[in-house]
Amino acid sequence: MTAFRAAEPVSVEEERAQFDAFHGAMPLAEDCVIEPIVADGVRGERITPHGADTSRALLYHHGGGHIFGSALSHRHLVSRLAVAAGVVAFNMDYRLAPEHPYPAGLDDAVATYRYVLGQGFAADQLVVGGESAGGNLTVALLLKLRELGLPLPAGAYLLSPWLDLTLAGESYEARAPHDPMITRAALDRCVTAYLGDGASADDPLVSPVKADLAGLPPLLIQVGTDELFLSDSTAFAERAALAGLDVELHVWAEMVHAWPLFHLALPTSGPAAIAEAGAWIARRLAH
Amino acid sequence: MTAFRAAEPVSVEEERAQFDAFHGAMPLAEDCVIEPIVADGVRGERITPHGADTSRALLYHHGGGHIFGSALSHRHLVSRLAVAAGVVAFNMDYRLAPEHPYPAGLDDAVATYRYVLGQGFAADQLVVGGESAGGNLTVALLLKLRELGLPLPAGAYLLSPWLDLTLAGESYEARAPHDPMITRAALDRCVTAYLGDGASADDPLVSPVKADLAGLPPLLIQVGTDELFLSDSTAFAERAALAGLDVELHVWAEMVHAWPLFHLALPTSGPAAIAEAGAWIARRLAH
Repeated sequence: MTAFRAAEPVSVEEERAQFDAFHGAMPLAEDCVIEPIVADGVRGERITPHGADTSRALLYHHGGGHIFGSALSHRHLVSRLAVAAGVVAFNMDYRLAPEHPYPAGLDDAVATYRYVLGQGFAADQLVVGGESAGGNLTVALLLKLRELGLPLPAGAYLLSPWLDLTLAGESYEARAPHDPMITRAALDRCVTAYLGDGASADDPLVSPVKADLAGLPPLLIQVGTDELFLSDSTAFAERAALAGLDVELHVWAEMVHAWPLFHLALPTSGPAAIAEAGAWIARRLAH
Repeated sequence: MTAFRAAEPVSVEEERAQFDAFHGAMPLAEDCVIEPIVADGVRGERITPHGADTSRALLYHHGGGHIFGSALSHRHLVSRLAVAAGVVAFNMDYRLAPEHPYPAGLDDAVATYRYVLGQGFAADQLVVGGESAGGNLTVALLLKLRELGLPLPAGAYLLSPWLDLTLAGESYEARAPHDPMITRAALDRCVTAYLGDGASADDPLVSPVKADLAGLPPLLIQVGTDELFLSDSTAFAERAALAGLDVELHVWAEMVHAWPLFHLALPTSGPAAIAEAGAWIARRLAH
């Protein structure tokens, strides 16, 4: 994810194009049908693996600092998660900052969730998920669904989630020497873009590490030791635990930010993390 | 574990007898051979499940606030863990406070570890573990092995570990209304007994949540949301993560302290937690 560390300022359009070109070239899971969809104005796709249980689904939110990433760039990961879980996946192009700051992306996530319910998926047959900024959107979505009184999904899968846009966790300093991908300067830029003119990084819907988490469904959190965001996961797990939630936190030693995206370069730990997530999603839906 | 909440002061001998009578009556796993052993003066037993891989072992430390509990009381749990992991287990009667305050129990744990190595088990074919005060001893053992330059085991399994004898975690207040088993007053008594005349609760070997954890092996931590000790686990997981360790933390919603001990009363979540631990131990030794 070179976009997070660009030495030279590049335009956000260039950043998105580079990221999509790199990740869009990664091989998908085999035997998946990809169908373009539009969910109340939000474009994206439905991924149906051969043999999947089509009554169950993963609604996935890609990462990219709220400013880049796309359904195209993440199709390779989302298709592999869908195969590992044996479910349908929805992989969406929510609106990005700086053109569309908070809460545009969250509004799109809510609209997509309503769309998926409207497609006949029961809430308890859904798991929501996402990595990095997509993990942020995933938790904000849960909080918003709770506020709206909509039925909650059966679980939430968070991969290297970015949950504290105030960048206050100990790992932002302590793990900086170990993180080859992400810098504070790059994150500052993403924060500025996402907040726009009016939002605050202290808002629980922007920094879910500050939220009241009571009543949320079970969580799986995967994070690497070698990433700035490590404390976001540990602090969030602690807060979820104190709120009485079921939470599984797996800290993977020596792994970088969102390493399952690099399943070709990390042929052991990338697929192993995808398999772990898939098995967890399948267990959450086995009822 | 009524011993933690006795309304009336009882003698420690009475407390131990009640605890052993209750837990000693629980059914063992089937098809296990139990052999009494003496490991450099420490009494205990070797549990060999039928069909277990006899080159691999779990060295388990029972709980009981450092003042009660025994190989007898925990045989039912340890035998079930051994069966779930498919390994031999060592279930030991380390010395207890107040007669034998810190570091007597830890010295016994180190002596037993050396004994197990001497029995021909390679360190990388061993997992150490324990619950509650036994989880405390387990981490202190790892720290002591590191200090002594002895080979470390392949992993450590911690069930509802008591890792902060200063009782400083948020859960000691926040989860108190949810904990039906343990009170601060009972813990104060255990702390006083364990510290004896000379030790400090700030010593990392007494409160491993304060230790430098660099270089320790992978950890599995299971804890319930409905126990005072919840923050011990979340704080320790965070510290382990920041030290670069592989750590899996599973917070079980609505579970009480050391609930796998109550596998008869909790016929779903008790055996499920034992199965999860057994599978993790087996994976750690599959190399």
